[in-house]
Amino acid sequence: MPYITLNSGEPGIRGLLKYRPETGRPLSDLAEVLLRGPSTLTRGERELIGAYVSGLNDCRYCTASHSACAAAQLPGGMTVVEQVRCDAASAPVSAKLKALLRIAAAVRRSGLEVTAEDVAGARQEGATDLEIHDTVLIAAVFCMFNRYVDGLGTVAPDDPARYATGAQRLISDGYRPPE
Amino acid sequence: MPYITLNSGEPGIRGLLKYRPETGRPLSDLAEVLLRGPSTLTRGERELIGAYVSGLNDCRYCTASHSACAAAQLPGGMTVVEQVRCDAASAPVSAKLKALLRIAAAVRRSGLEVTAEDVAGARQEGATDLEIHDTVLIAAVFCMFNRYVDGLGTVAPDDPARYATGAQRLISDGYRPPE
Repeated sequence: MPYITLNSGEPGIRGLLKYRPETGRPLSDLAEVLLRGPSTLTRGERELIGAYVSGLNDCRYCTASHSACAAAQLPGGMTVVEQVRCDAASAPVSAKLKALLRIAAAVRRSGLEVTAEDVAGARQEGATDLEIHDTVLIAAVFCMFNRYVDGLGTVAPDDPARYATGAQRLISDGYRPPE
Repeated sequence: MPYITLNSGEPGIRGLLKYRPETGRPLSDLAEVLLRGPSTLTRGERELIGAYVSGLNDCRYCTASHSACAAAQLPGGMTVVEQVRCDAASAPVSAKLKALLRIAAAVRRSGLEVTAEDVAGARQEGATDLEIHDTVLIAAVFCMFNRYVDGLGTVAPDDPARYATGAQRLISDGYRPPE
C-alpha cells in the first residue's frame, strides 16, 4: 500500500507520475532523453546501467522494470542482465561497459566515491567524455527514481510477465505519457 | 578539475546543465516546478530540505548553493539553516517541517528506510499527502543532483559571497536557463 493516496491503481513510478503531472512531465522527459535519445551507448546498455544501479539499491520495481527493458534490447537478453547484476566484473559485456558500470556503482554509493582512476579506466577502454557524463547521470537518476518509488511505498507487481509487457510498451512508445 | 572537459568555466551543476542541454532542460524544469512552483510548502522550506539533504550527502556545492537560497527566503535566515543542518530535531522550525525533514533524511539513506510511522508522524503534524510526496521527491532529487555534481568532480567555489549572489539570481529568475 502506498503511503499516500494515489489517484490510480498503477504500480511503481507510473502511479507517481500520474499523481503529480507537474513533476511527472520533466521526469518523463529526462528518462526519454537520457535512456532513449541519441547516444553512442545503445538503449540496451543504458537500461542495463539503470537496472544494475536499481538492483544495488534493492528497488524491486525499478530493477524488474529496467531489467526487462535491458533484456529486450541487449544481445544475450535476461541471462546477461542477471550476470551483470550478480557480478558485473565477470559478466560477458565489453570492457568499456564494465568500466562504466564500475563508475555507476561508485556514483550509487556517493558522487564522492568516483575516482580519477575510475574515469581514466573507462577512457582507456574507449569511453568518451559524453559516455562518462551520461553514465554518471543515469546512475544518479536511478538513485532518485529508486528513492522516489520506495520512499512512497509504491506497489511492485510480482509477475515477471507484467514487466516484460511494460518493457515492450516503453520500447515502442517511450517514457513520455500519451498527450 | 572536473573529470570531463566542460565547455564553460561555470561551477557545480551549472557547468553540467550547459554541457548537455538535452538533459539540462528537463533537470532545470524539474527544479523549477518542485522548488518554486505552486505549493503549500514555502520556497524557503523546500530549499531548506534540499540544503539539508545535500549537507548529509557532503555535497559542498549543492549545500552552499541551496543553503544560500533557503537563508534568503526563510525567516531566521542562515542561522536557522545552520541549526537545521547541525541538528534538525532541535532547530527552531515548525513541528511539521521537522517531521518532513525526518522523512527526507530517511529517503537520503534509502527509499526503503522511510517507515509508515515517519509518514504518520508528518500527517499528525498537519502535513498533506502532497507535502509528503514533494518532500520525498525533493530529497530524492537532491540525492541525484549531489551525485551528478560530485560524481563528475565539478568545481565548488570557496567564497560564500558567490553563493549568496547566485541565490539572488535564482530567486529572481528561477532555475530555467535564459532562452
